[in-house]
Amino acid sequence: MERTHIAVVGATGLVGLEMRKLWDADPELKPLTLKLFASYARPDEGVLSLADSKGELANCQYILNATGDDVARSIKDTLKPGQVLIDNSSAFRLDPEVPLVVPEVNGSQVQSLPQVIANPNCTAILLCMVLNALKQWTMNRVIVSTYQAASGAGLPALEELQAQVKAAGQSKPMPEPRVFPYQLFSNVISHNTPIRSEGELGEGYNGEEWKVIQETRKILEIRHLPISATCMRVPVMRAHTESVTIDFKQEFKIEEVRKALSSAPGLKIVDDWAHNHFPMPLEAENQDLVLVGRIRKDVGLPKTLHLVLCGDQIRKGAATNALQILKLHMDLSSAGMVV
Amino acid sequence: MERTHIAVVGATGLVGLEMRKLWDADPELKPLTLKLFASYARPDEGVLSLADSKGELANCQYILNATGDDVARSIKDTLKPGQVLIDNSSAFRLDPEVPLVVPEVNGSQVQSLPQVIANPNCTAILLCMVLNALKQWTMNRVIVSTYQAASGAGLPALEELQAQVKAAGQSKPMPEPRVFPYQLFSNVISHNTPIRSEGELGEGYNGEEWKVIQETRKILEIRHLPISATCMRVPVMRAHTESVTIDFKQEFKIEEVRKALSSAPGLKIVDDWAHNHFPMPLEAENQDLVLVGRIRKDVGLPKTLHLVLCGDQIRKGAATNALQILKLHMDLSSAGMVV
Repeated sequence: MERTHIAVVGATGLVGLEMRKLWDADPELKPLTLKLFASYARPDEGVLSLADSKGELANCQYILNATGDDVARSIKDTLKPGQVLIDNSSAFRLDPEVPLVVPEVNGSQVQSLPQVIANPNCTAILLCMVLNALKQWTMNRVIVSTYQAASGAGLPALEELQAQVKAAGQSKPMPEPRVFPYQLFSNVISHNTPIRSEGELGEGYNGEEWKVIQETRKILEIRHLPISATCMRVPVMRAHTESVTIDFKQEFKIEEVRKALSSAPGLKIVDDWAHNHFPMPLEAENQDLVLVGRIRKDVGLPKTLHLVLCGDQIRKGAATNALQILKLHMDLSSAGMVV
Repeated sequence: MERTHIAVVGATGLVGLEMRKLWDADPELKPLTLKLFASYARPDEGVLSLADSKGELANCQYILNATGDDVARSIKDTLKPGQVLIDNSSAFRLDPEVPLVVPEVNGSQVQSLPQVIANPNCTAILLCMVLNALKQWTMNRVIVSTYQAASGAGLPALEELQAQVKAAGQSKPMPEPRVFPYQLFSNVISHNTPIRSEGELGEGYNGEEWKVIQETRKILEIRHLPISATCMRVPVMRAHTESVTIDFKQEFKIEEVRKALSSAPGLKIVDDWAHNHFPMPLEAENQDLVLVGRIRKDVGLPKTLHLVLCGDQIRKGAATNALQILKLHMDLSSAGMVV
């Protein structure tokens, strides 16, 4: 059998670059043929122009899309039978026909071998990893405030923050922000997605918050879960932090919460009270685990839990999650072929 | 009558320096004699050594303490009749005999001309300014997650972050953190106060969170208000940001919330949906107003409000609030003398 061809579309963006890095380090994936596509060709890196290479793309069994909604829609429209799209854009995430998958949470949805699988929003993935670990208790309500890294907005955003740090560190004039509406260095800004307008459902929420709310409900299959999010950017290069409050229906023992979190795949408890050592971006970056800490009961409400989580939004929040979906789909496909 | 002598103890720290700056710019205060005290004398700045200048301190009618709990206690122990201590430490904040004052909120507590008045924790002051503006609705619950600036931990902490920025901006090795337990640059760390230990009330909360909870209850005079805080530091030089969720007892109209916030003294609404322009540290710093925005109803819970606030924790969170208390006390004292 021919070696499976797999495409990364958006191969020169932050998520695409991370996929390539993870690919090279993965003995299971490395033998497969990876085809790289981007808006502009980079012959030295083997990156093809997406517009000029439709034939090559049509030849790939799996397409990992790490670009935006428009490209995702046009790829989906031209999928041939047997081709699979694993899509990191938000084009199909809320489509009832398309599974929205975090393998540790709802990987079973890949069993039907869907042709299109959506990779969720990064903030939602990290949150769902933790909420799912606590599913033995019934959630009545979730409230999350985020501390999101610049790189969540892509390479130009990361470079913008780096340029601001350079200017500040060298006492030079601060360059004008272009990607974010305001300087992020030494600042905290509301997430740079449009605010939902007056009269609309979710009025006053920004696009990122709305994704977190809607996608978390879909991933956890709790359609009417009361969940609210406040999404903010902080001057951090990489890894998102989230402060989470969960009201459960019943009382819980904090030791049992710790036990549930520590035994959940993909999570790591970092909760050292004596040394004030808790989840933080500098330790969450460049690895796949979601760090969880500051685990505590509410002062007065015995059914309420507070915690802080932190994860690399480019890894588990995007590239890693997509590759996990890919491997799961390939495993299930070959298993099916054996039968 | 002799000109009133006023002491600033801790005159070389961030809050003390800010008090001096505000003093010089205030035509009402400038004519009064300001005496400066610190651990070490700085003759060129007119700063006296606290240990060597007990007589000078005893001669001051008002003492503004901008140092820690121990100094606060020793000053209180030696207060003479007529002398007034306005204390920025946390030594007496929860003392039932000592009023804890944010003038816009509970300035009436200065009317009895107490000899010791406590200046609240910075995060609590900013929060209470906003919660008090909404007191026409009954609060059932408050949840706050903070994004606190390095300078909240004092001048050495600010300088530590500045040194890290300099190293990063000049591609030099990152200096080891000394003030904070972990590098703050490009990171988010849990607030650097000790975690309350197992079995203790508020177990798992850090000192800052506990202050916010206890002081907010005292300032608002809602002893059993269910309030929870998660306090985090972000790599910001100055001004604290807070993401706040409030459950009210009754439904509310969002326009009425806006009206209440916009008419409250000391608050400024920054809530421009079209331009993603919301409260942020770079606009909150070096001024006295608490900025409020991201004002919105919960997606599903009609009695729940979410908002973001931002204020300069050295100004309104400390120095400005103390000087407001001072002026109020002086006004009321002289009014009393006239009668």
